[in-house]
Amino acid sequence: MKTRNTLANLEEYVPGRKRPGTVKLSSNENPLGPSPRALEAIAEWAAQVNTYPDGLACELRGALADQADVAPENIIIGNGSDEVLVMTAGTFLNPGDRAVIPAHTFSQYEFATSLYDGEPVFAPMQDGRILLDEMRALIGENTRLVFLCNPNNPTGTYVGAAELRAFAREVPDDVLLVVDEAYNEFAEAPDFPDAVELTRDRGNVLVLRTFSKLYGLASLRVGYGIASAELISSMHMVKPPFNTGLLAQKAATAALTDTAFVEKTLANNREQREVLRAELDRLGMPQYPSEANFICADCGRDAKEFAAELAEEGVSVRPLTSFGMPTWVRISVGTAEQNRVLVGALDNVRARGTALHP
Amino acid sequence: MKTRNTLANLEEYVPGRKRPGTVKLSSNENPLGPSPRALEAIAEWAAQVNTYPDGLACELRGALADQADVAPENIIIGNGSDEVLVMTAGTFLNPGDRAVIPAHTFSQYEFATSLYDGEPVFAPMQDGRILLDEMRALIGENTRLVFLCNPNNPTGTYVGAAELRAFAREVPDDVLLVVDEAYNEFAEAPDFPDAVELTRDRGNVLVLRTFSKLYGLASLRVGYGIASAELISSMHMVKPPFNTGLLAQKAATAALTDTAFVEKTLANNREQREVLRAELDRLGMPQYPSEANFICADCGRDAKEFAAELAEEGVSVRPLTSFGMPTWVRISVGTAEQNRVLVGALDNVRARGTALHP
Repeated sequence: MKTRNTLANLEEYVPGRKRPGTVKLSSNENPLGPSPRALEAIAEWAAQVNTYPDGLACELRGALADQADVAPENIIIGNGSDEVLVMTAGTFLNPGDRAVIPAHTFSQYEFATSLYDGEPVFAPMQDGRILLDEMRALIGENTRLVFLCNPNNPTGTYVGAAELRAFAREVPDDVLLVVDEAYNEFAEAPDFPDAVELTRDRGNVLVLRTFSKLYGLASLRVGYGIASAELISSMHMVKPPFNTGLLAQKAATAALTDTAFVEKTLANNREQREVLRAELDRLGMPQYPSEANFICADCGRDAKEFAAELAEEGVSVRPLTSFGMPTWVRISVGTAEQNRVLVGALDNVRARGTALHP
Repeated sequence: MKTRNTLANLEEYVPGRKRPGTVKLSSNENPLGPSPRALEAIAEWAAQVNTYPDGLACELRGALADQADVAPENIIIGNGSDEVLVMTAGTFLNPGDRAVIPAHTFSQYEFATSLYDGEPVFAPMQDGRILLDEMRALIGENTRLVFLCNPNNPTGTYVGAAELRAFAREVPDDVLLVVDEAYNEFAEAPDFPDAVELTRDRGNVLVLRTFSKLYGLASLRVGYGIASAELISSMHMVKPPFNTGLLAQKAATAALTDTAFVEKTLANNREQREVLRAELDRLGMPQYPSEANFICADCGRDAKEFAAELAEEGVSVRPLTSFGMPTWVRISVGTAEQNRVLVGALDNVRARGTALHP
């Protein structure tokens, strides 16, 4: 069977690896587990998984609308943000249309673009930072989508509120600005933007968020988009009827109320991110400033080899080779205990004589 | 924001309705609940939903491969069969390509086709039966996909083994024959085909199956496709990295071993389908012969009105208006108790003076 022409443009996703018995710091998961309230909801509703879920996820959208101070009509739920990205391309991208994407970022912007026969165009970055001037310069007649990850995965840097606002004003009305805020809850910079504000008066801004990180529900696959009602209504046309299940919807709704878990998660991240930063300094590994639940660090040599050696010491981190950063790794912020294991592993790798950053 | 040209061709899905407190016989769900072994798996693995699932679902694919006597490389897992359908179009359908679809069948074949800018072409049916000669006659130069639902949703009829084999031989090598077997386990006709056999020597046959019906896991969203390793490998290129979650994979794997639940479900369906058939005969409602877990019956008047009156009596059934059968309803086979409630409701509707089948 001959496949679609565009399939040659799709690259296979490289997931974070996990060997049994290792500390997994390669996928930015919540190290404290899932939200306990979400677990209660799963136990409560499991016996009803023989029934079809509410395809429009009304309860969850209502709860999210309350939290973000928008209407349920401003929200679409996806099988993870991944699916919201695919639905975005499926709604707006005609074959040959262009999408502007930062050079080193989450791979699924390119995937969604190529899946719908679009053409990704990559904007240079500097010191792990997205350069909005470079992105703006690439927006042309055929551009329909602009992807921005804030804080950026995998570098951890962010675009500030004033800068983002100015950029959004300059994006033409017929170009959709997608702001992926998968990690926004971990950001603490005073000028970190709330991109939802931009959706109130602009019909061409879509904000993505997820339950996979802060709420610890990566395996339930719940992400969502916030935008104008008109835009969300269009996206619902391409949404498969039952794209999220009952347990996913119920667990996510419950997790939103789990403020104790959220606070614990943020406190751990705040504390351990500093510990991790200090240890990487001690080990001579340069890093980018991070507003997320991970740190992006330079190991000064082949990142895949470096990660393989760390894996032998019982810790998995993400080599950023597939992100176009072949000497960098992304290390998730773990618990204090996981950090201790990581630092021990890093010390052992160094003691073996393979310099961390020669 | 201007949407893709093709969006005008997408129709909104009409789900089975459920009012609180009603007996829901509108979505062909398992009336005995979910597989108990699946529930055990959910309880066992819930605490790990903070981690990302295995994107390739190796354990589940291995178990399915054993069951179907194929290799794991012959299987792709989807977020419900719905997603496998979308991935099928995404893998094989270039804009303008045609898909041949029976006139009265599951709506998602047309949805997936239109989503990727394909053109659906509908083959006439007779007495609720798919006519393979009519489908064959529509296969032309631009045809890339042929969809066959066996047993057919919503009519319940089936295509026999010899007929299907002959048809598959006549489908050109560069046209993919998709055989959706969502309901195949309920079929009891001696000549009901095992379409997986066709995949062994033909590279252009894809069989779809689901955990939503027999195993009672509709809300966990697990469907799968079986085909040649080459075809499945191509489809994996368009699969989002984490399209099914940990609980979905674990529950489905456990459900496969739940032979007691499977036997109980099939016994209930066998028995209650006959009860339902006899009652519909008594009420003068013509039906198509059913090999599935539902019966398709003619109410002789506007099916939406009829379904609305039944809903007031506490029972929801599916009017087939959106399937192009405006006087027919699809009634899921329930438990003995649900059937009793249904029959009482049908009697009440008749007693009101609104004839069932004037």
